[in-house]
Amino acid sequence: MIMLEKLVQKNNSKLLLVVLDGIGGLPVKDGKTELELAHTPNLDSLAKESALGLHIPVDYGITPGSGPGHLGIFGYDPLEYQIGRGILEALGLGIEVKDTDIAIRGNYATVEYVDGKPIVKDRRAGRIATEENRRITQRIKENIKEIDGVEVIIEPGMEHRFALVLRFPHPLPEGSDQIKDTDPQKEGKEPLKPIAMNANAQRVAEVVEKFVHKVGELLKDEPKANYVLLRGFSQKPKMKGFEERFGLKACAIAVYPMYRGLASLVGMDVINFEGSSIEDEIETLRSLWNDYDFFFLHIKKTDSYGEDGNWEGKVKVIEEFDKNLPKILELKPSVLVITGDHSTPSVLKGHSWHPVPVLLKSDYVLGGTSQRFTERECLKGELGIFPAKKLINIMFAHSLRLAKYGA
Amino acid sequence: MIMLEKLVQKNNSKLLLVVLDGIGGLPVKDGKTELELAHTPNLDSLAKESALGLHIPVDYGITPGSGPGHLGIFGYDPLEYQIGRGILEALGLGIEVKDTDIAIRGNYATVEYVDGKPIVKDRRAGRIATEENRRITQRIKENIKEIDGVEVIIEPGMEHRFALVLRFPHPLPEGSDQIKDTDPQKEGKEPLKPIAMNANAQRVAEVVEKFVHKVGELLKDEPKANYVLLRGFSQKPKMKGFEERFGLKACAIAVYPMYRGLASLVGMDVINFEGSSIEDEIETLRSLWNDYDFFFLHIKKTDSYGEDGNWEGKVKVIEEFDKNLPKILELKPSVLVITGDHSTPSVLKGHSWHPVPVLLKSDYVLGGTSQRFTERECLKGELGIFPAKKLINIMFAHSLRLAKYGA
Repeated sequence: MIMLEKLVQKNNSKLLLVVLDGIGGLPVKDGKTELELAHTPNLDSLAKESALGLHIPVDYGITPGSGPGHLGIFGYDPLEYQIGRGILEALGLGIEVKDTDIAIRGNYATVEYVDGKPIVKDRRAGRIATEENRRITQRIKENIKEIDGVEVIIEPGMEHRFALVLRFPHPLPEGSDQIKDTDPQKEGKEPLKPIAMNANAQRVAEVVEKFVHKVGELLKDEPKANYVLLRGFSQKPKMKGFEERFGLKACAIAVYPMYRGLASLVGMDVINFEGSSIEDEIETLRSLWNDYDFFFLHIKKTDSYGEDGNWEGKVKVIEEFDKNLPKILELKPSVLVITGDHSTPSVLKGHSWHPVPVLLKSDYVLGGTSQRFTERECLKGELGIFPAKKLINIMFAHSLRLAKYGA
Repeated sequence: MIMLEKLVQKNNSKLLLVVLDGIGGLPVKDGKTELELAHTPNLDSLAKESALGLHIPVDYGITPGSGPGHLGIFGYDPLEYQIGRGILEALGLGIEVKDTDIAIRGNYATVEYVDGKPIVKDRRAGRIATEENRRITQRIKENIKEIDGVEVIIEPGMEHRFALVLRFPHPLPEGSDQIKDTDPQKEGKEPLKPIAMNANAQRVAEVVEKFVHKVGELLKDEPKANYVLLRGFSQKPKMKGFEERFGLKACAIAVYPMYRGLASLVGMDVINFEGSSIEDEIETLRSLWNDYDFFFLHIKKTDSYGEDGNWEGKVKVIEEFDKNLPKILELKPSVLVITGDHSTPSVLKGHSWHPVPVLLKSDYVLGGTSQRFTERECLKGELGIFPAKKLINIMFAHSLRLAKYGA
């Protein structure tokens, strides 16, 4: 990675990375995958003149979550950069995470006070309705805005879940997130203290303890959600941003908070825009075309339908993307990559380990190896099967933004 | 590898790894390889619906011995885990090797006593007949059963060779095998003392020296084999077993001692059974099907004929395996892999560095890429060319025994 950064040079090329989330599939009807079943005349034409291949998101046989999946295609080794659970939860609920933050996953819980001590009766507060969660979280928002100069940011999730970010007034040293979960994992026990596992985490643990105490006081009158259990304390991993690494301005066009958050972690500008359809996203892309060098465009629904086992739905999203592809091609990106962050075969109803189809269009490819953008046709392509973290190298090379290595 | 172990989860899947030893080949007649020449209707059908590829046993261009070849496909990096020559010799002669053992390769030699000192006249005792070796080894077995509480285990090999295991009453610390060879490498010299290269090896070296002395006394009356030269002192490498790593019960069905020994090193139960044919092995597999989760089935003769340069023989073994394949498929393994530990092209009369064909059958593959299980058809497959040590990842993924990495 260090070598890549040393070779980077500037030019006026435009790079576009389109992520069809969970695009890779398995045979689901008549021996064909979702990509094979879809009617995609535009993708077919493009595939014939593009470089094709498949990437391995993390390692052979490893099924990635969305975090590792995206880090890989952004050029960050997902085994080196591990994103804490608290961070992912916060990003997923739309909270931006900074160098000054500790992000935490929370559960509302029910406790009973015995001799003044809270004893956990239900670790999930009877799985309260999401609506109820929102009401309670709003109470906390209004009443606990800061603790000892530390800003408290909290957002409700589904049922009993929430994300909490403690924003300190200064960047936190490494290891500040090394705090033990407070969830005792069993009913009938007292919630655990947030114990700091090193000196850097000490100050954070104190603030956490005060927060838990204040919430306990505030919610004492609630019938179910009268306490909080916290886990997955995590801080933003130290990682150089896109601009610093590659000397270009990058932006992210994505609808869902998780992917917007992942892009912000690597220093992309996250664009706010109206609407949420593929058309809306491409319209946004066109409007920004002169303002950035690198564009990450994220399309979620391929994954959502895959997770539901709804292959017809996944096929339709692929076809919808295909219809909109000409509008992307009109922009004439110097390098266009279409791929996924991982596979989500409808037959598995979830992420999988299978290599992910990659299409790369540029003036400097062989092309002519394959007829379509499908798993099996990508196997015939010139890119072969390669680690996801190398995709950025290949993209930058084709934009002529990498100088020669050695004389 | 550590990550893999963290992701392992249990289920009821059955995994079967069939190793056709030395299966990979090169064109030997009409431009066809042994696999291409063989008539294999069952393998052909299976190949059409399986994931195919080729594995690289150790590294590009590296020809593996049986030890590294098997460690790789068992999921142990053969460059990280090196099995000493003494261990391999002992395993090959059917001696089990434990944490308490030092395994050693031995030669019978002829010495002449000059001023009471042994001087080597023939380092190989005139390459005595194997029958003669057996007789002499039996004399040692009967007369030197232990030394200072250390059990002496010795087995004859071919001609002048034997394997010796010194079994201590307790596990040995690392480095206990760091002892210099006693073979002076030249005739006319005195055998070298077994010199310990560190403190841990000191006690072992003392026992070795006593053993050599006792054998010298015992065999003084032998005309040729009246002394022993020892080399390749080695102890069992520290490696976690299959059950500890993957949370499953594994067994090995193999005829030859070397492969039975290699399987025992990684903690597989080594099965004793009647007969030695492919049919006998598959019958054993069937009888054990409910007792284990992972099965390693080793077929040797593909390699033996390859080593002899007998391509017709190798073709016949492949065809015999093909005839028996339906009996394996009837068991409906969740994941079936058919591969080799390395290539043994008949034209080379030995192991080679060529990538080894891999076939993986499961419900979660693309398939449809290839017509047969041959080197050239495997090149078209969805697994690509990958390091052997990743085969286990891929097998486990397809059995749904690996959890997602990251959120």
